[in-house]
Formats: sequence, C-alpha cells, structure tokens
Amino acid sequence: MQYNLTQAIHVLERTPAVLRTYLYDLPTEWTSPNEGPDTWSPFDIIGHLIHGEQEDWLKRTNLILSDNEDKTFEPFDRFAQFELSKGKTINELLDKFEALRIENLRQLKELNLSEEQLQLKGRHPALGDVTLKELLSCWVVHDLGHISQISRVMAKQYKAEVGPWIQFLGILR
Amino acid sequence: MQYNLTQAIHVLERTPAVLRTYLYDLPTEWTSPNEGPDTWSPFDIIGHLIHGEQEDWLKRTNLILSDNEDKTFEPFDRFAQFELSKGKTINELLDKFEALRIENLRQLKELNLSEEQLQLKGRHPALGDVTLKELLSCWVVHDLGHISQISRVMAKQYKAEVGPWIQFLGILR
Repeated sequence: MQYNLTQAIHVLERTPAVLRTYLYDLPTEWTSPNEGPDTWSPFDIIGHLIHGEQEDWLKRTNLILSDNEDKTFEPFDRFAQFELSKGKTINELLDKFEALRIENLRQLKELNLSEEQLQLKGRHPALGDVTLKELLSCWVVHDLGHISQISRVMAKQYKAEVGPWIQFLGILR
Repeated sequence: MQYNLTQAIHVLERTPAVLRTYLYDLPTEWTSPNEGPDTWSPFDIIGHLIHGEQEDWLKRTNLILSDNEDKTFEPFDRFAQFELSKGKTINELLDKFEALRIENLRQLKELNLSEEQLQLKGRHPALGDVTLKELLSCWVVHDLGHISQISRVMAKQYKAEVGPWIQFLGILR
C-alpha cells in the first residue's frame, strides 16, 4: 500500500481515542507495570507519544519544508518521558496527547502537501537522508507499534496465569 | 500479577470499544489486507473474536462448572470466521462482537465465581487439564494479542513506505 495523506490521517486521528478507550481510568495495576528492566509501561508509552507530538513529527516536517540549508533533525530523546510524566496521572497524559495530536493534524492538513513536497528530504542524525513521505509514513507505523506494545505489556502481566495456553499465545513469547 | 476477576473484567469490557474506535468506518484499504498468505486481516480477526464469544469462553466455563463427567472442550475452529463473516461489513462485525461480549460478561458476573471454582478443571483437547482460572486469564491475553495483531497487520501495509526507518520499527520485522 502506498502512502497517501488522507488514508494516513484516518489512522493518526483515531490514535488518541483508541488509547483513551484502552487506558483512561484503567487501574494502575494495568498501566504501571512494564516487561522488566529497561522496558516501558503503558504510562511510559503515552509520555513518549506526547514527546513525539512536541518534538518530532511536525517539527521535522517543518524543517524539511523550510528554507534552512541544514536540514539535519534534532536527535529525538527516547527517555524524555521519564522526567516529563513525573507526578502526572495516565488520564492527564491521555488528555495532553489528544490535544497535541489534534493541533498537529490541524497543522498538517493546513500544509496541503503536494506529491513534490512529499519527496523533499531531511537528514536524520543516524539514518541519513529521508523523505517527508517516509517521515509521515513512520508517524503512522510508530502509533500502531506503540498500540501493539501496550497490548503486549498488559498481556505479559498474565504470563504466569494462563498455564499451558502459553504455547498458543504468541504475544507472551 | 495474579488473576483477579474484577481486574480482568476491566480489560474484557473495554475490548469492543477499543476495536470500534480503531476500526469502525475505517476504509477497507486498512481493514481488508493481511500480512501475506495464510494470515488474517483486521476484518478476519473480528470474525474470529465473534466466534470465540459464541463457542469458546463462556461455553467452556459452563462446561467446567457443570456436572458433566466428561469435561473435554469441543475443539475450537480457528477458521470458522472465513465462512461466518462472508458478505458482512466490518461495522456489522464490530456491533455483533460488542453485543456478544456484553452478554457474556453479564453471564460471567452473574456466576459470582469463588476462588475454589476458579481452581476447577476442564480438559483441553490438545493441552490436557486446564483450570477455569487459566481459561479466564487466557480470554484476557487473547483479546490483547489480537489488538496487537491488528496493529501489526495495519503497520505492515506501510512497510515499503518508511524507508530507512524500518530498522527502528520492530513491529515491521
């Protein structure tokens, strides 16, 4: 399937509601545990998505479209959420993510990007040249990846509870 | 985390709404593709979840709690949805799944299961003896596994679109 802005926005605009339906008011016994050392809980993941809305997708889009000579992206801090989410509830994070996503999609639509603009390039600090289309495709896959991860982290809390069914449940392995 | 009925129901009762938020009215270009031969699309997965509500979880629970001498479960048909979902829209399937889940959770709560009952056993045709608690834990993990799968199937549609980012996106591998 080829990237298409309208089709991508169908997914991007649902993510906050999907996460809200999944996690809002869910007891912390589901939202705080992770998968073990150096892994993320559902709470951590929402913080990471917030940071992406603030520092990644639209910022990099605007840099690619800008007149800047140097189009090298700022490195993205994958651990920023541990400080930024401190003292907050998951409900607060879900509200914040939704507000940021709505605003970012408003800005994205307003850009009214052409096929030519989607081919423009930025420079990723680790990956080298990337097109705007690749960045925007990555935004969609990144959402889906983290919804999948939240499901897996929650599922693993019952790893010891399913008995012999573990062999049929790929998500636990 | 140890299985607990109230805590498990928190997840089970959200699943229809999570899937609705994710997939209701989503264009079929997202809901019909799968991951390749012998894999399932989001549409197929909702059909499979429907079949589970009809033939698996509550039926097996009731068999375990029954006075039957033979507590061997009927084998579950993992391919039934291909026939049963024919000609239906994903919206119809989502509505059907929600109605069945609401009714099954009503029945589950009404059983008012004790810790002793959760230790009762049934016989899985392939896995042998399993407890009611393991069956009910499996129900939760099964939901989460399929939400994760839906995310992965959708993400894979953009596998060729993300360019060099593929190496950072574990869900595409």
